[in-house]
Formats: sequence, structure tokens, C-alpha cells
Amino acid sequence: MSRSASRGRADRRQFDVPDLVARARGGEPRAVARLISLVEDESSALREAMGLLAPHTGRAQVVGITGAPGVGKSTSTNAIVTAVRAGGRRVGVLAVDPSSPFSGGALLGDRIRMGDHAGDKGVFIRSMAARGHLGGLSWSTPQAVRVLDAAGFDVVLIETVGVGQSEVEVAGLADSTIVLLAPGMGDGIQAAKAGILEVGDLYVVNKADRDGAAQVARDLRSMLALAQRRPDAWHPPVLKTVAASGDGVAEVVTALDEHRAWSIATGELQRRRERRARAEVEAIAVAALRARLAQVGDHAEIGALAAAVVAGESDPYTAADRLLEG
Amino acid sequence: MSRSASRGRADRRQFDVPDLVARARGGEPRAVARLISLVEDESSALREAMGLLAPHTGRAQVVGITGAPGVGKSTSTNAIVTAVRAGGRRVGVLAVDPSSPFSGGALLGDRIRMGDHAGDKGVFIRSMAARGHLGGLSWSTPQAVRVLDAAGFDVVLIETVGVGQSEVEVAGLADSTIVLLAPGMGDGIQAAKAGILEVGDLYVVNKADRDGAAQVARDLRSMLALAQRRPDAWHPPVLKTVAASGDGVAEVVTALDEHRAWSIATGELQRRRERRARAEVEAIAVAALRARLAQVGDHAEIGALAAAVVAGESDPYTAADRLLEG
Repeated sequence: MSRSASRGRADRRQFDVPDLVARARGGEPRAVARLISLVEDESSALREAMGLLAPHTGRAQVVGITGAPGVGKSTSTNAIVTAVRAGGRRVGVLAVDPSSPFSGGALLGDRIRMGDHAGDKGVFIRSMAARGHLGGLSWSTPQAVRVLDAAGFDVVLIETVGVGQSEVEVAGLADSTIVLLAPGMGDGIQAAKAGILEVGDLYVVNKADRDGAAQVARDLRSMLALAQRRPDAWHPPVLKTVAASGDGVAEVVTALDEHRAWSIATGELQRRRERRARAEVEAIAVAALRARLAQVGDHAEIGALAAAVVAGESDPYTAADRLLEG
Repeated sequence: MSRSASRGRADRRQFDVPDLVARARGGEPRAVARLISLVEDESSALREAMGLLAPHTGRAQVVGITGAPGVGKSTSTNAIVTAVRAGGRRVGVLAVDPSSPFSGGALLGDRIRMGDHAGDKGVFIRSMAARGHLGGLSWSTPQAVRVLDAAGFDVVLIETVGVGQSEVEVAGLADSTIVLLAPGMGDGIQAAKAGILEVGDLYVVNKADRDGAAQVARDLRSMLALAQRRPDAWHPPVLKTVAASGDGVAEVVTALDEHRAWSIATGELQRRRERRARAEVEAIAVAALRARLAQVGDHAEIGALAAAVVAGESDPYTAADRLLEG
């Protein structure tokens, strides 16, 4: 115990990336956590880490879970983890929280949820905050997925808190996306329908023991039936669960596996993964360009341009042109 | 009525930016709304619009209002609008909503809140969603502020929904930032304190008629007193309001004006505005670089790089290097 603690402190001083990667690949949770911290911190050690992880990626089944607040995302994630573990597979969870250096909620949530799976080395749960400047969640989430994938987790669940712009992006980048709904959400769900019909590979009406669940499922099915799909396209199933009791959750896991099998057979999995990799590469390239910009536009020059904009003598577009010409 | 409707349709077809700017400057709400839509849509007409607006900017008092969910941000915004209007000044409100193509809440919120100020040409309220890809709110908010400023609004309130990363940025870019708190928020507030002590120019404990309000104000004052500040620095006041009844809100407006006077006298206003302009210019320059990248990295090349990343033969950093060399 004391040896491991002192080793942890030593790691923080001198950084042995190959050792960290080896330990993460060996299933050591602290090493996995450290690698994800590198992602969150946009550490300069990331480049080396990602190079070492690359040959070991591409195995995990990456599942996005999204839905409006109140539908039971955390409970559902928890139940899916339990169901996946029942089949012997290892699960990593990334809870993506677009809010809050302030709320403090993310850490608390982890502690509560870890409880159910405490001591299970086959489960790793981590909240991620979008604190970065290089492109936020769309930049950091795929890299965190890459860490869990290389660390041998068979399934990686990305739980998005809320359903905003960045979450839609994250959902679009998963191998399979679950859209979660619940009865009694009122007009919000109505307003949402147009958008959610495009992102789900699998629809789950949670809290199915409540009034109105059957109606929500019926409405969804008829709207999905109206959507134009090619005959060979995936037809997203609509399932019902009571995540709190686990009812119906095994069927969700089965449906995810069916979607995966279909995705592999049709080449859709490869297409999605190439799209995800492409977005990652572009985000990193843009970050590199941004760093170059910071070198090119030295402090004095951009200061003068900003002052001209404040004085109304120039506008931000003209100033940006000048900055790039400089 | 029918003429104005047909004119609206004509505008959508053929785009007369100088006319739109002139009408916005003349106080026509629909023209102001259209210009902000250009910002949200990242329209190519923005460049021309911003050039025409630039000479008329720099007059508005830009106020950020932020705070955790449940503290009464919308009610407080509403009350501040009423108080500012009582003094005869015109107010524009930007409600910045980081969530939701899905929630539909933004539009509904506008309709409800517009009710209090319906028919008042001195008030303009607009929700903004972070739908853009060019850098989200940090890119679009200052440009929307620019529109309202040039349209002659004396005060521009930026209400941030929630207190996440992007909101902190937005708050940092206002001339004056109000941090709103309320009693009974429990641990969330405790956890938040470290962060909020840095962003507020003015602290308002709302719902001051509830138990615990005095305690929250006391705690805040003692924490603010502990913060290291230079003797000539601004010492943020802590005020109490009951926004729902308007109690204490006039004092908030007075404190904002005091902070503005201090900011002008000390040069802080100019510094903040240069910082805001600088962030805008950099964001636009990065967007331009990104567009160049899209031209440089043609479809086939980035496709091959992405495929190599998916196959584990390369990592995103190495692929980004190749893309930029290409």
C-alpha cells in the first residue's frame, strides 16, 4: 500500500509513458485513469501514448447512450454495465459532462455509481469534463475511448449528460447509439422527436412500468416507420426497460450485439470508425494550426488588431485576415 | 401586414446586407433578429455585416449573468430588464443555451419572457443555441453582442444557462459579470465557491426572503475578503434580491453602473474589450485556417489516413502531421 502510494508520487514527477501504457494494457485501473487524465489535460505526453496504444485499438464495441435529463441515463448505464458483466465482458464507462467546473456533480456521481461495481476489475467508470480548449468533447472523447479500447475493455459506454450539440456529435461517433426516452416527459419529447430519429440505432423507453410508456413506444415506432430508409438499412428497434430493476436490459445488450453484427456485415462499422478517426485527425491538425497561429501572430500584433476592433476602426474578420497575412 | 410578410420572403431570397444593417440601426427588431441569425448560421454575409456594424460598436454596457441552475437567472434577468427600462435605457438580452437542438426549451422560454416586455421596442430578447462548428458560443456570442451594440442597445445582458466551461468564458468576456446564488443549494454551492470567486464583479444572493440567504451572503463576503486583491482592485459587492418581486434589483443596476464607472476610470474596460476582441479575431482566424485545411487535405488523402488509424497502423497525431505536411 505504502509502496504503491510512493510509486504514484514518483510517476507524477518523472513520466514513463511506455510503462504507463504497459500497466494500462495489463489492466491496472490507476494507469488507465492516468492516461485519461493525460487526454483531459491535453498533455504533451499524449502523442507518445497514442502512438503506443494505436496497435492495440479497434477491438472494443463503442456504445453511446443519450437522452434528455430525467429519462434515467445513469441508472440505465449502470444496468447495462451489470448485464454486460453477466456475460463476462469487461466494460469501460465514460460519463461525458458538458457542464460544470462548478457543479461538482460529476465526481459525486462517480462515487455513487462506482458503488455497484466496486472491486470489480472488469468495470472502469470515469467522468469527463469538457475543460479543454482544443475542441472540447469531440476531441477528448474519442481519445479516451482509444485508451479504454487498448486497455482491453470489450465494451465502452459513452454516457452523455443532456442532449446538446456536442452530445449529438459524440453519439454520431459511437459504433452504436442508444437513445433513451421515458414516459411523462411531455412536450419536450414531442419537440425532440425530429432530432432523435436521426441519431439512434436503438431506442429504449425506460421507466416502462409507468403510465404512457406503451404510448411513447407506439409513437416512436410509427415515426421511425415514416422515416425513409433503404430496404437494406438498419431498422432501429424500440425496446422497453425498467432500468432500476433491470427489466428488459438483457434485451438491450442483445440488440446492441445484433446491431454490431449488422454493422460489421455491411461495412457500416468500418465507415463509422473511419469517420471518427477522420474527425480526430482533423481536430488535432486544427489544434496544431492554432498553435502555429499563436507563434505567427505575436503578442504585439494581435494586441494592435484587437485595439483597432475595440475602437470600431476594424472588424474581427478584417483583423483576422491581417493576422493570417502577417 | 401582407406587404411586410412578402418583403420578409424577398429578403430571404436576395440579401441586401447594407439595408439590413441600416434597418437594425434604425431599431427594427426583425432586422436585429436577422443579423443575429446570420451569426448563428455562420453566414458568409457576416463578414460584410460586421464591417458595416464596426463603426457603431463600443457603446453598450455588456453584462454577463451566470449561476447554477435553480438560482433564478431568468427571473433576475427579467427584473434587471425592468429596472434598466425604468431608467429609460434600451436593453438587449442574449440567453445563451449550451444545450438542445432537442429541448425546444429556448424558444418557449423566449415566448414566456417576452410576455413581460411585449410591445416594448426598447427590449430585445433572443436565445442563442451553440449550434456552430467554428468554436461555439465563444465565437458567436461576442458577434451577437456586436449586433445589439451597433443597433443602439445601451445595455446588453448575456444570460448563461448553467455554469459550465463555455459560460465561464462568456462571463469573462463581459464588461461586468454578475454571479447569482441562492440559499438552499447545498453542497453544490460549497463546491462551486472556489470557481465563482474568480469570475464575479458583482455577487447577488437571490431568493433573499428564504432561510439561509443571510448566511450565504456572509459566507461569500468572508471568502471574498480572503481573496488576495491589490488595494486598487475592484472589491465585488454582495447584494441581496428577491427577483420575483423586484426587491433589491434597482441596487443591482446601480452597482453595475458603479462597476462600469470604475472600469472606465482604471482602464479595465478597455483591457477587457481588447481581450474580447482578441478572442474573436483568433477564433475567426482559426476558422479560416480550418477551411484551408479542408482544401489542403483532400478527401482521398484524409480518408486513407483515417483508415490507417482505424487499422491501428497509425495514430491520430501521426496522421495529423502527415495531413499538414501534405
